[in-house]
Amino acid sequence: MGFENEKKTFLAKLDKSKKGSIDTKIIPLLTLFNEHKHYYTTSSCSGRVYLWKGTGKKNETEWINVSHDFITNSFFNIRIEPETGLKTERGTERATVWLRVEPSILHVACRDIPSANTLLEQAQRVYKKSCILSASNKIIVELRGSEFMEMPLYNDGTLLISDIDLLTILVNKKMESIFQSIEKLAAKIKKELN
Amino acid sequence: MGFENEKKTFLAKLDKSKKGSIDTKIIPLLTLFNEHKHYYTTSSCSGRVYLWKGTGKKNETEWINVSHDFITNSFFNIRIEPETGLKTERGTERATVWLRVEPSILHVACRDIPSANTLLEQAQRVYKKSCILSASNKIIVELRGSEFMEMPLYNDGTLLISDIDLLTILVNKKMESIFQSIEKLAAKIKKELN
Repeated sequence: MGFENEKKTFLAKLDKSKKGSIDTKIIPLLTLFNEHKHYYTTSSCSGRVYLWKGTGKKNETEWINVSHDFITNSFFNIRIEPETGLKTERGTERATVWLRVEPSILHVACRDIPSANTLLEQAQRVYKKSCILSASNKIIVELRGSEFMEMPLYNDGTLLISDIDLLTILVNKKMESIFQSIEKLAAKIKKELN
Repeated sequence: MGFENEKKTFLAKLDKSKKGSIDTKIIPLLTLFNEHKHYYTTSSCSGRVYLWKGTGKKNETEWINVSHDFITNSFFNIRIEPETGLKTERGTERATVWLRVEPSILHVACRDIPSANTLLEQAQRVYKKSCILSASNKIIVELRGSEFMEMPLYNDGTLLISDIDLLTILVNKKMESIFQSIEKLAAKIKKELN
């Protein structure tokens, strides 16, 4: 099956993400790729902040609160159950609740290696951590921002951070930077790849 | 200049990292690549934990404490200067001191796209976030662990975390996971690529 058919088939499928819909902030960027003859997008996230507990492995991790937008202090007010442990391979564990901020991430299928290189060269000027995830069967370029947070927030029900106002400000600064970088990338792609 | 010559020239150069020497934990893995006819390593870090302040941009960031090994509580005892601000484009800023844990990272130059694909396929079983950084002039595969922390630790001289013992434990858990994954990757490379 050639690139054209793969693209047609893929874009006809429904969005299958955890969230169940495409983040609106990233749609203009997706459209740029999907209207380009050498590219189409296979997954995307506009950036998000969430609380989680567990081992970090897919089936042993529980998401608690998720936001794809700016937050207020109340984002951190979670009800800690008397038994916060999760069942894992090693038995029930007392849980640390972590806070994570993830950058915007796009996966772009490319027609061939040269079109992947062209995209990568432009994208890395805005999203330094962009790279080729796969170059064998499908050629997939990952476009990834650099913003990140990962920190323990609660342990056995106790809040570990003394200044929640500051934490809210710092998370929102990251989110702002994430959203701005989506627009920067879209401008770069529009200018250089069309 | 062909791959053989590039490899010879590159490996004759001195290590130019910030640290000034190669992390011993990662040397067996580097040797596996550098003795392989299709690969050589261009940079590496065995994983590290450090405190930093500034904007995050290269010339506006100051590293405070760095460890490439397990830490004790005293790692977090830093002297906060009365003026902790850094000069930035926007003027002097009051500094947040951040704690960051970074996974092990290797950059491996590959002879061609097929040898990059072979490496990537094996490496992604241990280091899921591995990818091709460049596929045009030099072909560089990045092998990258998944462990990460990024959190505010001090703000205007005030410690933000109530439980430094726990933080030390959590950092060391990450470091342990980082060091174990280097050995897993080395075993995988030795078995599958030689």
